Amino acid sequence: MREQLTEEYIRRVWDELPAFVKPTTFHSTLLLNQALDADVTLASETLQITGSFKFRAAYNLLREVESDEVITTSSGNFGQAVAYACMLLGKRCTVMMPANSSKSKQANIRSYDGEVLLIDTATKSRQLYTMDMLADHPDAFYAPPYDHYRVVAGNSTLGREIFEHFGPGGIDYVLCPIGGGGLISGIITARDILAPDVEIVGVEPLLGNDAAQSLRVGHIVTLDAEPQTMADGTRTPSVGKLNWEIIKGGLKQIIEVPEEKIAAGLQTLYSKANLKVEPTGALTTGAVLTQPEQFKGKRVCLIVSGGNVDVDVYMRVLGEE
Amino acid sequence: MREQLTEEYIRRVWDELPAFVKPTTFHSTLLLNQALDADVTLASETLQITGSFKFRAAYNLLREVESDEVITTSSGNFGQAVAYACMLLGKRCTVMMPANSSKSKQANIRSYDGEVLLIDTATKSRQLYTMDMLADHPDAFYAPPYDHYRVVAGNSTLGREIFEHFGPGGIDYVLCPIGGGGLISGIITARDILAPDVEIVGVEPLLGNDAAQSLRVGHIVTLDAEPQTMADGTRTPSVGKLNWEIIKGGLKQIIEVPEEKIAAGLQTLYSKANLKVEPTGALTTGAVLTQPEQFKGKRVCLIVSGGNVDVDVYMRVLGEE
Repeated sequence: MREQLTEEYIRRVWDELPAFVKPTTFHSTLLLNQALDADVTLASETLQITGSFKFRAAYNLLREVESDEVITTSSGNFGQAVAYACMLLGKRCTVMMPANSSKSKQANIRSYDGEVLLIDTATKSRQLYTMDMLADHPDAFYAPPYDHYRVVAGNSTLGREIFEHFGPGGIDYVLCPIGGGGLISGIITARDILAPDVEIVGVEPLLGNDAAQSLRVGHIVTLDAEPQTMADGTRTPSVGKLNWEIIKGGLKQIIEVPEEKIAAGLQTLYSKANLKVEPTGALTTGAVLTQPEQFKGKRVCLIVSGGNVDVDVYMRVLGEE
Repeated sequence: MREQLTEEYIRRVWDELPAFVKPTTFHSTLLLNQALDADVTLASETLQITGSFKFRAAYNLLREVESDEVITTSSGNFGQAVAYACMLLGKRCTVMMPANSSKSKQANIRSYDGEVLLIDTATKSRQLYTMDMLADHPDAFYAPPYDHYRVVAGNSTLGREIFEHFGPGGIDYVLCPIGGGGLISGIITARDILAPDVEIVGVEPLLGNDAAQSLRVGHIVTLDAEPQTMADGTRTPSVGKLNWEIIKGGLKQIIEVPEEKIAAGLQTLYSKANLKVEPTGALTTGAVLTQPEQFKGKRVCLIVSGGNVDVDVYMRVLGEE
């Protein structure tokens, strides 16, 4: 699908999508600069529609879909984004979620008029559930969370905002989390058009470092099981095919962040920037805390991917020593 | 000092101050609208410089001060704002704080190059400490937190942003917390110039309802002791004189919010708007939860005054049943 990601298409999305999404929140504080020993600007998607960057992807994906029925599987932000995009676009939406998914995320999807279908992933895989569901609903559109050119193009609108905000030569590094690779593919795509000299650094939890492994060996590495990192937005066992095509040529480095540094990142954003973030949103801050010498005194943009986190999880991480 | 609050002066501040402060963060979510059963826009100062609206006041107050030495008393946001403003303006700053003030707030003031002087308010009043300090430093400027026309004018820049954002007829109510009255005086001042038809509703904790009592009896009521509300930004025993002059003619209503509704407001902003706020910042949300019938279906702007809150306090309130 990479041939569909033309600069012409990307620029059309940049013209059209901003009317439907919120601009990112650029945020800097002296206390955060002191804590990270760098000149830091956060690009926070915590106040984005549905609370994460995923709405950019979901809305761009679905606004060109003709079917009035959409199905997806997600335990988190993509499900909420798809449900709300469907609500706005007048489509029916079913989100298949593992039965142990957080109650508040289930409730949010219902608030967006989405139907929640709880599935038991211990006895049957997500893929099988999806195939059965699509067999029963042959006219439905299945919404893929990252491995699709319109997803990448939607996410590229965040990259565009970042590179236009800083202008040529205005930033040394942009740090971006990697789960399935949809977000960082969009950021790389925007960088290649607007600011080819800026280095983008990928960030993964050490516990779910499939992309870092992939970059080392030169092909997609798939983890045996869903990694049990607190950064639940990155629990994908591997990056998508299209995403890998973009990542392998667009990144030099992926920082692997241990769990305790993800927690420290979340705490730092709480105390130094007044920002409530989900653990995945704290990855980039955790990356600076993991490799401080690399970023010392540099101008660094940290993408904060989202803010949706249950109270019990947030309190556990915030209270960690 | 009300005669100094001319429209000409206010408009000069509106021209000059925005170069030094961050614009407020307007934020709306469907989930928050559903939770409050109203058409809600937050005007959040949690991402303002030093994390609260106080920086608007402090910077406007101090930029016209000639003395290179500034003294203030504050256990909270005003001290941080004054310290940072002094840092930017090249002035020395001493903040007298009760010895039991939060360690993180003391640390923040030091991060802004302010000197912290711990005082024992059990044995000697803040006023006496201040008088002694000023006797020792006769050239120093004492920074008053709310009862000063330049403080009110600084805060009026937030009101201007709000009324220009919504435009004529664009909002039914603006809800604003009241401590010493500095913020709401600024909001009323801007309203009187830009949007005289919009109703501003004051919000106080029920435990510290001196302004509500004052409005009922028609003169300033002073509480016997500092009220022990969790909304520590409103623990002032009475509003200021200038503030009262503005409040008494500018407000029809002050909502008194019980502690449990302040907590519910903080929890609501966490879960429905991804916003970390201090208890004082949750007052306006708590006011809607206290009087839901008044705001049902209305277009309501809730001022979120700040976000600085220690982890232990936040976790206690967030976890409250």
